[in-house]
Amino acid sequence: MEFGKLFGVGVGPGDFELLTLKAVRILEFADVIAVPFSGNGERTAFNIVKKYIEKKEILECFLPMTRDTKRLEECYDKAAFDIKELLLKGLNVAFITLGDPCIYSTYMKIHRKILNMGFAAEIVPGITSFSAAAAKTGTSLCEGKENLTVLSALSNYTDEIEKISGNLVIMKSGKQIGKIKKLIKDKGLDKNFIMVECCGMENEKIYYNVDDIDENASYFSTIILKESDIL
Amino acid sequence: MEFGKLFGVGVGPGDFELLTLKAVRILEFADVIAVPFSGNGERTAFNIVKKYIEKKEILECFLPMTRDTKRLEECYDKAAFDIKELLLKGLNVAFITLGDPCIYSTYMKIHRKILNMGFAAEIVPGITSFSAAAAKTGTSLCEGKENLTVLSALSNYTDEIEKISGNLVIMKSGKQIGKIKKLIKDKGLDKNFIMVECCGMENEKIYYNVDDIDENASYFSTIILKESDIL
Repeated sequence: MEFGKLFGVGVGPGDFELLTLKAVRILEFADVIAVPFSGNGERTAFNIVKKYIEKKEILECFLPMTRDTKRLEECYDKAAFDIKELLLKGLNVAFITLGDPCIYSTYMKIHRKILNMGFAAEIVPGITSFSAAAAKTGTSLCEGKENLTVLSALSNYTDEIEKISGNLVIMKSGKQIGKIKKLIKDKGLDKNFIMVECCGMENEKIYYNVDDIDENASYFSTIILKESDIL
Repeated sequence: MEFGKLFGVGVGPGDFELLTLKAVRILEFADVIAVPFSGNGERTAFNIVKKYIEKKEILECFLPMTRDTKRLEECYDKAAFDIKELLLKGLNVAFITLGDPCIYSTYMKIHRKILNMGFAAEIVPGITSFSAAAAKTGTSLCEGKENLTVLSALSNYTDEIEKISGNLVIMKSGKQIGKIKKLIKDKGLDKNFIMVECCGMENEKIYYNVDDIDENASYFSTIILKESDIL
């Protein structure tokens, strides 16, 4: 019997129509769908693909949002162990992840653990939240000589907003959103700003005015901040 | 009679399976497919989608690679004029573009011109070459506190490689590839490097070793350069 294979499948930011043909094929092909959940909305990935995975076996992977790295590592080990048990039985596993697996995704740790155990693993790229937010608002992310820097609220975003050399995308702003709002206003970048909350989801909201930002906005908020005014 | 609508459709970097469900729906819905060509391989977008657009009317848009901005502007005006004529007849037009329309795409100029003429235009996001190259090689682009900066060979890539703060993607390296190769070697970043030429196309080639880079590599080469060694 051959061992199964792991697929890390990017499901895009929210709209099921932003799934790729390959993502749909792999979801239909897989025997088991591994679904991460964190207690913080991570079932979003499941909701995007649910029409393609009816009747499939589901493996729930608990990957909490915590700064306790030891606890987190134990959870990743547990998820990788559970996936390995399925691969040993010859089952193919699709691990779904919001957006793109290579951009701020919890999937990569699982990917490396499974490869290190000697199993095969493949990544299926997905539409990023920033591509979707840019498309939705008709905003280019970079043209000609412009750079684009992608940051998360864990990154050194203060420095990047201060110096604003090139265009910025700030993902997963979460609890930092009030601080980011203040920085944007202090730097006078109000006209260079767009934010999309929950892009492509039912509760999508677009902010063109930095003053309108709700400081309790979703973790799934993507800010585009351009070096020059947004056209 | 209602006017037609323009759709800027990202078709991903090469593999037709990386089209989104929405891209396929819009290509099937559109009356006319606008295909950019430059004399420099831009029919790549056409090749990716050709199975979905058989029997469709094609509008060829000549958008040359030139530094003659006056000549280029005339070409964009001509393309926008031709599209406008179709929209006036009530025809829906899908303008196909490699990768994502909001990242280094010629589409955005057309988009703004059509909006300024008072017509409706919508962007359909696509898989970027860097997401596809990262997926293909199992390389994360950013995790945790890491930043990701996306550059083109028109950008200030020399500075960015010199300071290498965060991970870099260098797109469309083209004629600059020899210079970029030398910079990577001079900075001792050999182990932090991956390049994918023509990702997802028939002539795809992956370079794990900077010494192997062919200085005549395709314009469609994506370099990933990480701050730390690639795992």
